[in-house]
Amino acid sequence: MNGACLECVKCGRDFSLNVINTRCPDCNEPLEVRYDLDSIPGDWFESLKKGCSFERYAPFYSYLKTDPALSLGEGQTSLIRSNRVNEKIGLKDLFFKNETQNPTWTFKDRGTAFSVQNAASLGYRRLGTLSSGNMGASVAAFGSRAHMDTIILLKSNVPGEKSDALTVYGAKALKVSGNYGDVYYKALEIGKHFDIYFSVSDDPMRIEGYKSLAFELYEQMEYLPPDYVAVPVGSGGLCRGILKGFEELNEVGFIDKIPKFIGVQTQGCSPTVDAYEQGKDEIEHFEGALTLDHVLENPYPPSGNQVIRKMRSSGGVLLKVSNKEILDAELFLAEEGIFAQPAAATALAGVIRAQAKDLIPAESSVVTVVTGSGLKYPHVLKKFNLSSDSTSLNQLAQALEALII
Amino acid sequence: MNGACLECVKCGRDFSLNVINTRCPDCNEPLEVRYDLDSIPGDWFESLKKGCSFERYAPFYSYLKTDPALSLGEGQTSLIRSNRVNEKIGLKDLFFKNETQNPTWTFKDRGTAFSVQNAASLGYRRLGTLSSGNMGASVAAFGSRAHMDTIILLKSNVPGEKSDALTVYGAKALKVSGNYGDVYYKALEIGKHFDIYFSVSDDPMRIEGYKSLAFELYEQMEYLPPDYVAVPVGSGGLCRGILKGFEELNEVGFIDKIPKFIGVQTQGCSPTVDAYEQGKDEIEHFEGALTLDHVLENPYPPSGNQVIRKMRSSGGVLLKVSNKEILDAELFLAEEGIFAQPAAATALAGVIRAQAKDLIPAESSVVTVVTGSGLKYPHVLKKFNLSSDSTSLNQLAQALEALII
Repeated sequence: MNGACLECVKCGRDFSLNVINTRCPDCNEPLEVRYDLDSIPGDWFESLKKGCSFERYAPFYSYLKTDPALSLGEGQTSLIRSNRVNEKIGLKDLFFKNETQNPTWTFKDRGTAFSVQNAASLGYRRLGTLSSGNMGASVAAFGSRAHMDTIILLKSNVPGEKSDALTVYGAKALKVSGNYGDVYYKALEIGKHFDIYFSVSDDPMRIEGYKSLAFELYEQMEYLPPDYVAVPVGSGGLCRGILKGFEELNEVGFIDKIPKFIGVQTQGCSPTVDAYEQGKDEIEHFEGALTLDHVLENPYPPSGNQVIRKMRSSGGVLLKVSNKEILDAELFLAEEGIFAQPAAATALAGVIRAQAKDLIPAESSVVTVVTGSGLKYPHVLKKFNLSSDSTSLNQLAQALEALII
Repeated sequence: MNGACLECVKCGRDFSLNVINTRCPDCNEPLEVRYDLDSIPGDWFESLKKGCSFERYAPFYSYLKTDPALSLGEGQTSLIRSNRVNEKIGLKDLFFKNETQNPTWTFKDRGTAFSVQNAASLGYRRLGTLSSGNMGASVAAFGSRAHMDTIILLKSNVPGEKSDALTVYGAKALKVSGNYGDVYYKALEIGKHFDIYFSVSDDPMRIEGYKSLAFELYEQMEYLPPDYVAVPVGSGGLCRGILKGFEELNEVGFIDKIPKFIGVQTQGCSPTVDAYEQGKDEIEHFEGALTLDHVLENPYPPSGNQVIRKMRSSGGVLLKVSNKEILDAELFLAEEGIFAQPAAATALAGVIRAQAKDLIPAESSVVTVVTGSGLKYPHVLKKFNLSSDSTSLNQLAQALEALII
């Protein structure tokens, strides 16, 4: 292969790296970056540089001209070993990759960072996305950082505090009614017309950003990747990105085994899992989606078919979980000290279900990606232990006595 | 000095490291850790280990037995260079230390991590704090992680979503009416009676945790510390901790100049600044506190006198800012891509005011500590640019046209 390009994930047709807001016109499938990996030396990981992902893992982003001034310090999140849930469910090694430590407190920032680098290097002055909240906040933050005019298309049912949390960055928000799929395709067209770089969920550069998570896991786990990686599957971009990172590590010869993926959806919106379970190659629009967390509500994910292909070819598992399983997982995570939004607890709920169905051997090492902060979606919280007011200090001592003895 | 000890910050009297929940009985001032710094080699920073703060900066925590399993990946937050505000206010080098990337999204986690390590090493099974929210959430998270019974004393006017956000971790919350100062002193007594390790704002180990922020700045700025560090001053612990870190770097010979500190309070609650401006040595209880953000409401901060002494002896500045200045600073930070809670924008507001009063030379390098996430306190947000719903795609195009042309 000479030079980097974009390639259709299904038919392999090549496109210029400069093509944006585009899917393969033959397959209507997303594109993916292909570039020369031969030049990465075998001892490279031992001489890592400091800095953000595109500096630290530069050889894996050699095709992209980057500017550190556009970074917000995305990535380099903590990997926490389970102290409690692992024993409850009988898994030897369970880890949480805490993506809530990103600049806008969700994994989206890894992808947005690369979309913005690409937009800036191609000369774009306008940035956009369509988002139920987390992606919008992320694109708004990075767009503002890059001095770009930023337009966020929001679903009309997004709660006020979510739209507030992105307009604070100075982005222009437009509420849009109608079918998510239609809006996605029209956004791509409108983007071309108005010279807006739409950093949608399957923007090839977004996928490239997500692959940094695989490189970090490789580092943090002392160059021994986990047996399994569990991720929530909304658009499917995160799953695709992390898997691509491990595939590239394998291609260069750093690892000889690619982790298996556990992709999880909620029963309230499970188009990808349903097609997978029914043996279909193409997802269908999920009707009547009803979920705990808007982030989970992607009834026609643009990377859905590709996720199914990838999971089948790599020996992964796709499964769905109930609202109750998600809330239980959210409380399990809180016991470990991590407050996740419901969507972010979905991966752990999937691990628990997979483990109960004997899909994961007990001696496996499993990484669960905690995709976003519980502060993003505090509505589901109940008051668990809140005692009534204690006015005097004697009452306080009595109340304490009642609580802890 | 033989061995590590606690020392009264005012009179220098020594106490055992095992003494907790205690102030100096002679001075009623907080204690601080003293230990032998001679053994740190001069080239030590070039051979830093990976891991959390107590692993990475181990020689500066040699007196403490630590357990990595109790860490939540606190610290190691991003340092972001200003792209926009620096030009607006005419400062050469302005940086933001983004403490919102901590595990519970505020700087408190650095301190809590060390309190919990100390509590565990001393055999405590109960943890507590008194908190208007951020500290409570942090102690609740780390307490749960450490399997400790955790009790949070909350002010009775704390909004529901704040108490929800800490009870989710499984902590027991008690709402307490009455004077903050009284509750603080009674908590220390109650702590002794019930064997609760109270990780209060001036727990010496909390201060030790905050000093890691100085070590990170030293690393991130290529071993050239900034001229100024700006911090919000609530309890005063953060200011004391970062300053102690730089003092230790200076003592060992890594740096020959300690940054000057800019400590900032809101006009709505400014006991420390008021005493400082009036030339007094001791703060008085601030009556009728009324602030934008509960975090700023500490009318009788236990480290207040020590902050005044430290600022006077080190050539620092203490000043106060208005609500409008804080909200303006919050929007400035958002333009840079950082969504801060109002308390966290206070430091930048102070920098802007200090700069306008010619207290900071234009060629200085200034680090502003952004102490907590905007998601912690979204109430002050207004809807800035939110356009009305666009139902059809034609309307969408028209709305876009109106927005961006």
